Amino acid sequence: MSHHLTQAVRDCIAACNDCATECGNCFSHMVGNESPNDCPACCIECAAICRLCADALARNSPFAKEICELCAKVCAWCAEQCAAHDMDHCQRCAEACRRCADACRAMA
Amino acid sequence: MSHHLTQAVRDCIAACNDCATECGNCFSHMVGNESPNDCPACCIECAAICRLCADALARNSPFAKEICELCAKVCAWCAEQCAAHDMDHCQRCAEACRRCADACRAMA
Amino acid sequence: MSHHLTQAVRDCIAACNDCATECGNCFSHMVGNESPNDCPACCIECAAICRLCADALARNSPFAKEICELCAKVCAWCAEQCAAHDMDHCQRCAEACRRCADACRAMA
Amino acid sequence: MSHHLTQAVRDCIAACNDCATECGNCFSHMVGNESPNDCPACCIECAAICRLCADALARNSPFAKEICELCAKVCAWCAEQCAAHDMDHCQRCAEACRRCADACRAMA
Repeated sequence: MSHHLTQAVRDCIAACNDCATECGNCFSHMVGNESPNDCPACCIECAAICRLCADALARNSPFAKEICELCAKVCAWCAEQCAAHDMDHCQRCAEACRRCADACRAMA
Repeated sequence: MSHHLTQAVRDCIAACNDCATECGNCFSHMVGNESPNDCPACCIECAAICRLCADALARNSPFAKEICELCAKVCAWCAEQCAAHDMDHCQRCAEACRRCADACRAMA
Repeated sequence: MSHHLTQAVRDCIAACNDCATECGNCFSHMVGNESPNDCPACCIECAAICRLCADALARNSPFAKEICELCAKVCAWCAEQCAAHDMDHCQRCAEACRRCADACRAMA
Repeated sequence: MSHHLTQAVRDCIAACNDCATECGNCFSHMVGNESPNDCPACCIECAAICRLCADALARNSPFAKEICELCAKVCAWCAEQCAAHDMDHCQRCAEACRRCADACRAMA
C-alpha cells in the first residue's frame, strides 16, 4: 500500500530538507549585519517553502507538484542572492538551493 | 565562523526530518479511515514540532534545547500510537519517532 | 516606513488565519473517522499553505502573490470537500475556506 | 460536538496570529540592517512558535499547553529585544509579543 514515497520523492524531500538547513544556518550568520542584497531575508522565504514542499511530498498532497514548481523559483532566487557573498555558509547555501531547485523542477 | 551545525546538531536535524517524512507518509495512508487510537492525528502534531525543531537547530535558536525537549515528548507519544498498528508505514513511523525522541533527548 | 501591511494585506492575512483555525478545528473533529472524501486531509494541506501565505504577506515576500494564487486553489478544493459534510465544523470550515480563496484571489 | 475552540482558546489563537504578523512585519523592516541586539532574529523564532501554537490550539493538541508555555517564553524574549528599538514597527511588535505572552501564560 506504499503508493508513494518512491526514491525520486524521497530524494526531492532530502534536497528540500538540506536546503532548509543551509538556509537556516546562513540566516543565523547573516542576520543582524548589513547586507547589500536580499540575503538573509531570502533564506527565510526559501526555508519556509522548502519545509512546506517536503511536507506536501511526504503527505502525497494533490498540490505537491505546484508547490514544487513554486519552491524551485524561490530556491533559484535565494541561490542568486547567497552566491553573491563569499562566506562559506552563503556558498554552501547557494549550492543547496541550486540542488533543491533542480530536484523540485524535475518533480514539477 | 561556523559556530554551530556540528555533526551532533546535523544528526539531530536529520532525525527530525526523517521523523517528519515518515509521519507525513503514515498520515497520508491512515487519514480518512477509522482509527482506534490517536494515529494519524499524532503524526500531524509530531511532524509540526519536528519541523520547528529542525529549523530552530539550523538557526541556532536560543530556544533549541527547550524545543528539543518538547519534541522528544511528542515523538514518544506518536511512537506509541503508531507502534500499536501493524501496517508497514505505521511501524516505520514509530521507528523514526523513537530515533528522533532519542536524538532530541540527547540534545536537550 | 510602513511600506506594506496595508488594510488589504491585513484583511488577507486575517482570512488566512481564520481559515487555518477552522481547518484545524475541522481536522480535530474528523480525524480518526471514516471519510467518504478528502476531508480531513484537505484541512491539513489548506492550513499549511494558509500559514505560509499569512507569513509571506506579513514579511512582504516577493513571492507573496504567487503563494496567494496557490493558496486560493487549495482553499477552493478544501471548501468543496468540507461543504459536502453536514457537521457544523465542516460547514464553518468550508465558509472560511471560501472567504480565504476570495481574499487570496484578490491579492494575486 | 464543538469540544474546544472556546472563546478563551480563540482569543489566544488571535494573540498568536497577531504576534506572528507583527513579527513578520518587523522582520521585513529590520533584516539587512545592522542590529545591536537579537532583533530581527527573535522575530523569526517568535513567529515560528506562534504559528505552531495557534495550530496546536486549533487542533486541540494534547501538547497545546506545553507549547503555550514555551511560546510565552519566546514572546517575552522577543518583546524585550524589539522594545529596545524606537521604530514604530518594533514598538508594535513588542506590544503584540507582550499580549501573546500574557495570553499563552493564561492558557498554560
